[in-house]
Amino acid sequence: MKISFKNDYSEGCHPRVLEALTKSNFDQQDGYGLDDFCKNASNIILQKTRSPKSKVYFVSGGTQANLVVASAFLRPHESVISAKTGHIFDNETGAIEATGHKVNSIETLNGKLTPDHLQEVIDAHPIKPHQLKQKMVYISNSTEIGTIYAKKELQDLWDFCKSKDLYLYMDGARLGQALSAENSDLNLEDVAKYTDAFYLGGTKNGALIGEAIVINNTKLQEDFEYHLKQKGAMLSKGRLLGIQFQELLKDDLYFELAEYANRQAMKIKDAFEETGCDWWAETFTNQIFPILENKKIEELRQKFDFYTWRSVDENHSAVRIITSWATKEEHVKNFIKKIKKL
Amino acid sequence: MKISFKNDYSEGCHPRVLEALTKSNFDQQDGYGLDDFCKNASNIILQKTRSPKSKVYFVSGGTQANLVVASAFLRPHESVISAKTGHIFDNETGAIEATGHKVNSIETLNGKLTPDHLQEVIDAHPIKPHQLKQKMVYISNSTEIGTIYAKKELQDLWDFCKSKDLYLYMDGARLGQALSAENSDLNLEDVAKYTDAFYLGGTKNGALIGEAIVINNTKLQEDFEYHLKQKGAMLSKGRLLGIQFQELLKDDLYFELAEYANRQAMKIKDAFEETGCDWWAETFTNQIFPILENKKIEELRQKFDFYTWRSVDENHSAVRIITSWATKEEHVKNFIKKIKKL
Amino acid sequence: MKISFKNDYSEGCHPRVLEALTKSNFDQQDGYGLDDFCKNASNIILQKTRSPKSKVYFVSGGTQANLVVASAFLRPHESVISAKTGHIFDNETGAIEATGHKVNSIETLNGKLTPDHLQEVIDAHPIKPHQLKQKMVYISNSTEIGTIYAKKELQDLWDFCKSKDLYLYMDGARLGQALSAENSDLNLEDVAKYTDAFYLGGTKNGALIGEAIVINNTKLQEDFEYHLKQKGAMLSKGRLLGIQFQELLKDDLYFELAEYANRQAMKIKDAFEETGCDWWAETFTNQIFPILENKKIEELRQKFDFYTWRSVDENHSAVRIITSWATKEEHVKNFIKKIKKL
Amino acid sequence: MKISFKNDYSEGCHPRVLEALTKSNFDQQDGYGLDDFCKNASNIILQKTRSPKSKVYFVSGGTQANLVVASAFLRPHESVISAKTGHIFDNETGAIEATGHKVNSIETLNGKLTPDHLQEVIDAHPIKPHQLKQKMVYISNSTEIGTIYAKKELQDLWDFCKSKDLYLYMDGARLGQALSAENSDLNLEDVAKYTDAFYLGGTKNGALIGEAIVINNTKLQEDFEYHLKQKGAMLSKGRLLGIQFQELLKDDLYFELAEYANRQAMKIKDAFEETGCDWWAETFTNQIFPILENKKIEELRQKFDFYTWRSVDENHSAVRIITSWATKEEHVKNFIKKIKKL
Repeated sequence: MKISFKNDYSEGCHPRVLEALTKSNFDQQDGYGLDDFCKNASNIILQKTRSPKSKVYFVSGGTQANLVVASAFLRPHESVISAKTGHIFDNETGAIEATGHKVNSIETLNGKLTPDHLQEVIDAHPIKPHQLKQKMVYISNSTEIGTIYAKKELQDLWDFCKSKDLYLYMDGARLGQALSAENSDLNLEDVAKYTDAFYLGGTKNGALIGEAIVINNTKLQEDFEYHLKQKGAMLSKGRLLGIQFQELLKDDLYFELAEYANRQAMKIKDAFEETGCDWWAETFTNQIFPILENKKIEELRQKFDFYTWRSVDENHSAVRIITSWATKEEHVKNFIKKIKKL
Repeated sequence: MKISFKNDYSEGCHPRVLEALTKSNFDQQDGYGLDDFCKNASNIILQKTRSPKSKVYFVSGGTQANLVVASAFLRPHESVISAKTGHIFDNETGAIEATGHKVNSIETLNGKLTPDHLQEVIDAHPIKPHQLKQKMVYISNSTEIGTIYAKKELQDLWDFCKSKDLYLYMDGARLGQALSAENSDLNLEDVAKYTDAFYLGGTKNGALIGEAIVINNTKLQEDFEYHLKQKGAMLSKGRLLGIQFQELLKDDLYFELAEYANRQAMKIKDAFEETGCDWWAETFTNQIFPILENKKIEELRQKFDFYTWRSVDENHSAVRIITSWATKEEHVKNFIKKIKKL
Repeated sequence: MKISFKNDYSEGCHPRVLEALTKSNFDQQDGYGLDDFCKNASNIILQKTRSPKSKVYFVSGGTQANLVVASAFLRPHESVISAKTGHIFDNETGAIEATGHKVNSIETLNGKLTPDHLQEVIDAHPIKPHQLKQKMVYISNSTEIGTIYAKKELQDLWDFCKSKDLYLYMDGARLGQALSAENSDLNLEDVAKYTDAFYLGGTKNGALIGEAIVINNTKLQEDFEYHLKQKGAMLSKGRLLGIQFQELLKDDLYFELAEYANRQAMKIKDAFEETGCDWWAETFTNQIFPILENKKIEELRQKFDFYTWRSVDENHSAVRIITSWATKEEHVKNFIKKIKKL
Repeated sequence: MKISFKNDYSEGCHPRVLEALTKSNFDQQDGYGLDDFCKNASNIILQKTRSPKSKVYFVSGGTQANLVVASAFLRPHESVISAKTGHIFDNETGAIEATGHKVNSIETLNGKLTPDHLQEVIDAHPIKPHQLKQKMVYISNSTEIGTIYAKKELQDLWDFCKSKDLYLYMDGARLGQALSAENSDLNLEDVAKYTDAFYLGGTKNGALIGEAIVINNTKLQEDFEYHLKQKGAMLSKGRLLGIQFQELLKDDLYFELAEYANRQAMKIKDAFEETGCDWWAETFTNQIFPILENKKIEELRQKFDFYTWRSVDENHSAVRIITSWATKEEHVKNFIKKIKKL
């Protein structure tokens, strides 16, 4: 059996999460997120974000989070701006469009949007009412290619959005990894301060399942539960999500797991660096994208599993290597050994 | 703390499910339902239904199952027929309408649809193309008021549906309880034979979360995965669902849990019967609806928790008492003692 | 060829409308409703409604008006309340549901909604967020069965709606006929005062095509043009609609045509009254619904065309007789002669 | 008052259309497109296309035609491929997305799609079911920048579409002008043969309003009327559309008007050619796009009206000049005189 660096959701969950589920298993609780665990988990998040006016809603997955947010926040004539690499643009089977909204996309260098990008999209839509009104900006942090937003970059986006009456929404499937990156100067408090809403990803960072949507803009909180229920995103056993987030966040387990994942990736990155390879993107999180000769890729693939990301030229491709909280150090060592032998 | 008979999702899951999750936790598996556990669980279901041509898709909740099915099966001008008591009609925040489809409803005596009901709805929509085309029939088994379909009743519905080119879809949130009822003559094989699709409920019968959609009509299987992904119903850690269903179904645990739940309800039913009360519906599953004097309801509620279902007259209301696999026999005994004292 | 009393859109348009089209044919004008004719027609309407803050939008048909309004006014979790006889409920092929919104319906005596009806619908939806939030009330005037709202009835509805934060929207496909009925005490000014929006029907009262949506609630005017365009309701030659409404409304032609239509219907009504027949609904507008023996219906149908509305008992049915601005007095005379001979 | 070359819908309709409306005005006819005029017009179209299996549906505008077609033809997980210049991509306020479907776009040289473009889009969506399934190809003829498809180009697209199980749909808002262009080798028969559906534009070629959707693929005809009604596209006085198309098509008036429009544009094109200007696109239809110095544009604009299309460099822009059946030869002469003086 090959060792997999294909994704960060190959295993179950951190053992402490299973223990917490077991311990709480027979507590009788109300359904639909009204249980004590969800309340506690929500309080912990609001303490960490220092954003008491925010509200937290737990859902089972990222696509679900994104589509409920778009459907709830936007009127029918309003669109979302996303980088072309944004997960909602081409990797969620048209989930946003299925709620009636277009995603206006724009090419970026590194998966990150800047105010200039937003201005360019807006400028391309001057003809009211024949063209859509841009109303929400979708960013991911870390991005789909592993890059992260610096504090200043997020502030600039936020200021621009506010000046243009746009909502700023952050997809945080890998937010833990982003905030724990060695070059990150951003924390949860900043994220709550400089977005209208974001979600804190559990599935890819220690949970069995679950994402915590945090809505900071109080106007957008109104009636949000209805949208969760309508889109099938409200679990009758909401406790399943509350228990997990409570356990991951009650101390710093969540961030420790993310740091661990990043660290393993950085070790592999160093090993590739030594071979003198190029990179598809410069990343400091748990996703790295070395550009390798195709025949070396095949060699690596004999014992290790990972995705080929893009073909770069006839003989080279970028591959994606992902680590997680569950990646074994021993596997990383073996992989590095193999890399050095290439 | 009161003992709760409010619903059948107050606790976590059957201990064997937690054990199975723990045991499998570090197996590396593919995402999105392509893992071995989902494959095994799927095979087990297809063996039990004796329906090798059917396909199984795991999702996290019932509203989600219903809305994905409606969206995938219907063209924009096609509607669903449901009993007025049907969960999709008034308890899922317009989830079906949000996918663009109307639910045509009809009053029933006991929550169950008959061919006469269907004919009545069709007859009320003769004006093509100004009225919708009915295309799918939604039934629940057990129903929202605890009643169940006999084999003959399901066959008759099926024959009618096929004669009118209608799809027959069964919401099986409590299908285990329905099939395990003492007066049931229906089994999983029949359900697969006499429906185009149904779902087998996990959340309310021992799982932490999860429902298994089974599509028997091969035409309707086509591209179904796209719809799951588009509606946010495809978990990246699909393994979570596969592991649970595998554990519940590999022997007869699933049906044992349902039988247990039914048995507890029947004991409570007997106790109420002795007091000479009337019933909102005649049920043999884990939901019972005695009609009680309001002051007796208040008395019961001092130590026990349950929902008041409907007001019957000035002094009487129907209440809903629900038991589950997790209901403690001791709690049932205490409740019965209290009932007898009323 | 039979004489038709089947509907009020069997002919083209009033000759003055054709003349106006001919006269203006070569004026070069801007597209999309920005032409002078639309501006003038809009001004005339706002003068007649004495509602300078209102805005007018011209569209080509009633279903289109209704669906654009629902889509623009409502958020995804909000529903519309309608009488079961309401046109949107069962005669527009699910147009409202296709925009994602449920229509909550209620049985009425005469096609008209009262505050009690609204309260009953709201009371049936107490479970937030599992049931939809009612947000808009749809009424038609005259109704689908020819009845009309008295001023007091509309005021009461309006007061109730405002107390419950509901929008009140009037479908005015036959608003001219309603306001011109001999027993009406309502005028256009009242309609603008006591609704959030309504539309003034052209197609059924002298125009070739066209309805004028009037939005009185300034908040609901915001961005409404986008919705028109998105739903295909914005004509590039918007002038076609402006010219017609300008011509019909610049003097009182519009109301004269409606009065004429009503008068013809009342003459026929009197003739039926003399035969001692019962009525499906008591109406004073251009739609009447006598209940006749089936064999007499067949006799009438030899030379005249009309719809059988509903079967009343084995031997009797209600039929619908409609007149319009184009109904010839001679045809009415012949019809009356025939009725008297029955 | 300036002379307008802004668009081809500035005037009403060809006088013969008004005469036909006047002549038929008092014929009593059935509603909703079941009138004799629609039947006749439909027959004429099917004769001209030599496609007796095709069916014709009349609607009031192009955006409406496009959105009804997309909604009726596609299942929720299927997308449309369009050139970036395609009208549906960015000029119809997200009408297609509002029906739930994404438009996958691609950059083209001249507004025209080729099999290579389609292959490129398909190749960019390999990940089933996380990416949408491309199912319909949208082309316009003439395109939004005035170019046209040669017969061979259309055949190649058709062959490719059939090999990939894609529907080919042609937006024919200016199909008359395309087929009448001096360099066109395509006729209506070819269009019916090499598309699954197309529409024949009336609004921009002599009608007051109206487009004729022609569906050649019999499978796609099924239940299409329901979709028309649901989207508000079925006029109760459908006769208005039938009468116009009957008049325009009963002899060759429709194509004569298109030829006339093209001829006026070609005269203006020649005049610009003489000044030695560059072109945004090489066109032989009624839209031309000369690239001019900005100061010359301002000079022209003193007496003539037209749109600036795109900025080309600091000192130059492309402008769009449109002619129509209603363009006066005298105005063209004056314009040419002015051009020559620049």
